[in-house]
Amino acid sequence: MSNPPSAEINFRAQNQLSELFTALDSGTGREVRRMLSTLSPQSIAQLLESSPPRIRHVLWNLIDKEIEGEVLQELSYDVQSQILATMDTEEMVAVMEGLDADDVADILQQLPERLMAEVLSSMSETDRERVESVLAYDEETAGGLMDTDTISVRPNLTLDVVLRYLRRHEQLPESTDSLFVVNRQGQYIGLLPLSRLLTTDPSVTVREIMSTDLEPIPADMPDTEVARLFAKYDWITAPVIDEQNRLVGRITIDDVVDVIREDADHSLMSLAGLDEEEDTFATVRRTAPRRAVWLGINLLTALLASWVINLFQDTIDKVVALAVLMPIVASMGGVAGSQTLTVVIRGMALGQIGRSNLNWLLSRELGSAVLNAMLWAVVIGVIAGLWFDDTRIAVIILVAMVINLITAALAGAILPVALRAMRIDPALAGGVALTTVTDVVGFMSFLGLATLYYG
Amino acid sequence: MSNPPSAEINFRAQNQLSELFTALDSGTGREVRRMLSTLSPQSIAQLLESSPPRIRHVLWNLIDKEIEGEVLQELSYDVQSQILATMDTEEMVAVMEGLDADDVADILQQLPERLMAEVLSSMSETDRERVESVLAYDEETAGGLMDTDTISVRPNLTLDVVLRYLRRHEQLPESTDSLFVVNRQGQYIGLLPLSRLLTTDPSVTVREIMSTDLEPIPADMPDTEVARLFAKYDWITAPVIDEQNRLVGRITIDDVVDVIREDADHSLMSLAGLDEEEDTFATVRRTAPRRAVWLGINLLTALLASWVINLFQDTIDKVVALAVLMPIVASMGGVAGSQTLTVVIRGMALGQIGRSNLNWLLSRELGSAVLNAMLWAVVIGVIAGLWFDDTRIAVIILVAMVINLITAALAGAILPVALRAMRIDPALAGGVALTTVTDVVGFMSFLGLATLYYG
Repeated sequence: MSNPPSAEINFRAQNQLSELFTALDSGTGREVRRMLSTLSPQSIAQLLESSPPRIRHVLWNLIDKEIEGEVLQELSYDVQSQILATMDTEEMVAVMEGLDADDVADILQQLPERLMAEVLSSMSETDRERVESVLAYDEETAGGLMDTDTISVRPNLTLDVVLRYLRRHEQLPESTDSLFVVNRQGQYIGLLPLSRLLTTDPSVTVREIMSTDLEPIPADMPDTEVARLFAKYDWITAPVIDEQNRLVGRITIDDVVDVIREDADHSLMSLAGLDEEEDTFATVRRTAPRRAVWLGINLLTALLASWVINLFQDTIDKVVALAVLMPIVASMGGVAGSQTLTVVIRGMALGQIGRSNLNWLLSRELGSAVLNAMLWAVVIGVIAGLWFDDTRIAVIILVAMVINLITAALAGAILPVALRAMRIDPALAGGVALTTVTDVVGFMSFLGLATLYYG
Repeated sequence: MSNPPSAEINFRAQNQLSELFTALDSGTGREVRRMLSTLSPQSIAQLLESSPPRIRHVLWNLIDKEIEGEVLQELSYDVQSQILATMDTEEMVAVMEGLDADDVADILQQLPERLMAEVLSSMSETDRERVESVLAYDEETAGGLMDTDTISVRPNLTLDVVLRYLRRHEQLPESTDSLFVVNRQGQYIGLLPLSRLLTTDPSVTVREIMSTDLEPIPADMPDTEVARLFAKYDWITAPVIDEQNRLVGRITIDDVVDVIREDADHSLMSLAGLDEEEDTFATVRRTAPRRAVWLGINLLTALLASWVINLFQDTIDKVVALAVLMPIVASMGGVAGSQTLTVVIRGMALGQIGRSNLNWLLSRELGSAVLNAMLWAVVIGVIAGLWFDDTRIAVIILVAMVINLITAALAGAILPVALRAMRIDPALAGGVALTTVTDVVGFMSFLGLATLYYG
């Protein structure tokens, strides 16, 4: 279990932000520029993410040119494209100089096709080739995630030769913890961890100590599966190969951490009809239309519920207490269903749920729903009976509650699986679909039973 | 943007699971044992997580004794403690042999105090000391996350000496990418990346090339902040120090990835009143009571809404169409509010939201809410007017909708910040608090206006 995000944790970042806003208010950019120059690119990116758009653009222009690229690559896609929109081709090329090929590719993919081609053609030839080799793969695959600056060695070399070869480098690529072993055709055959290189007798050959346990990652593997492999096996870097088994790049844990965060965010944001890349400080102009669509979809659900209620107008007209109590049945169904839905959606995201255990899960949810239905249906039955001094209404709400809580559990468990089978994202559509079911069944059972009794 | 969890991604794991279940059904444990012996501890842990409790225990008993410990440490807390509950002290000690101190500490903390002491006292003295040094820190701090197997060197050594010193090791601790530089008092003074060690002339001293940029992590830093630092600066390992600046351990990225996943899960699960460590396949006996509490809390909210409706019984009695339409206003408020709530809760979890930008965020939400309120209030007004052939009801629902959507935006933005200030977890309490507000204001405004018009 982890702490809820607490006040202290954000203290430092929020303090920087306050100081910065004060400095910006006081007018001169010089003080702000001085403050920014003491911060790391990552901290500056965090400040930009935490700033409203207008301040964001002012800040961006005060950043030291030399670290603009590093700051840019740390930003989320939404914020990146806002900032890119203010640059011309030349500025973009300058900003991206010195970044890793995968990061440049990520940034370029935020741009319109035509502009991307323009920026690419203005790059130096080696840079362009490296970036294009990454761009050849879909952004959401291992190929789109990988970097191309690998260090590879042949299996027949002695460690002594490898050590001398490494010493000829000014420095090794960031996060290098292993060298890759390839054959004459450039095909991946094994891994040589730096730590093993350092603890083994230098006269031994690479082949004798290389590790062949780790299966290399095919370039077309989806990034979410790459993330799962990294999390599962505690990798720091992993080799990426093409269809001919040739080493084409490597993926490092820092890029994977971003995928893990996005994946985890995906369910949370989607359940509220939001995009996981949504900029917290997007303008009204960007926010309002996105929200409007979601509200429209939910209005249809609400109208459907109203249509159900409308069927029972006469009964409500006779017993107005029904109108008072009916939202309880619908809302409890919604709450119970969303618990099941969340557990199932998370289980699916973790790769835990499939045909073989779905039945067990269904019966568990059913069992839990029956117990809770009995408990809370009796409680609400007693409350309603006493409140309106009417045993009939007590029985009606009791039975309706049992029906809706059991329906909610079944819907919460089945809907996400069914939606996935239809290739619809359960996290996005599951909540709306569930509410529709629990509202309709809730109103229908409660008012329908009432019509039978009072009609 | 990342792919939604798709069928293919889980294909391999789900296939293993089906095969395993079939083998279990066929009766003999031998086939299952053979299958398990081909899998990594991580894959076995995934299978256990994906199995209902009874199968889980059968599987556990078929695992090769030698990897039990590795499997155990990969499991989530909920599942870990279920399995630990079936062991005696001796078995526990045997299982934990060979695990890292931080992993042993994590597992021990699942046990009752008395049992933990028993297991500790049955361990070898060196093992016990290492584990106790981790146990001295709170589980949710850097100290609780760290491992104690660091390799440290003195600053005045030449690299040549360091290389010879390393070669005397059988192997380096897992995920070692840097050595730590300490002074005579054991105080941390810098970092020596292996990659730099490999690319520098061996006659140079450690002091000349060590890196001092990275600020060491105090042992009492909360784990969520540690995770944020790792994600921000792309660290693989980082040194942990005590109050006297002495190096006490190191944190590696694999432990941090778990914290990042839990943190990200926290908001999703809490919004549905669930624990982020919840076992997907918990039994009914464990699930039902946890869910019951949440349903009870939400019943109070629903009853409050009913009480509000009850105030307007006479008006509903006069115009039954009000009963038909009233859920629309409440439910649209709930949907709009939960969008704002989710954006703010995520922004807070990312450390983006504080006093300095809250006002901007509030006005953005307000602006967006006003625009959407105007759009959808008119739409629903027109629909209601045509449906019941009544312009009064059109105006009433239009105005009520505007009021509730604006209230929802304000509540969605202010509630989480207010809850955090009161040290209540916004992810857990935010949803219920929000629904209470949007239900009460929704019914109150719609029925209140109707009473003014028709009364």
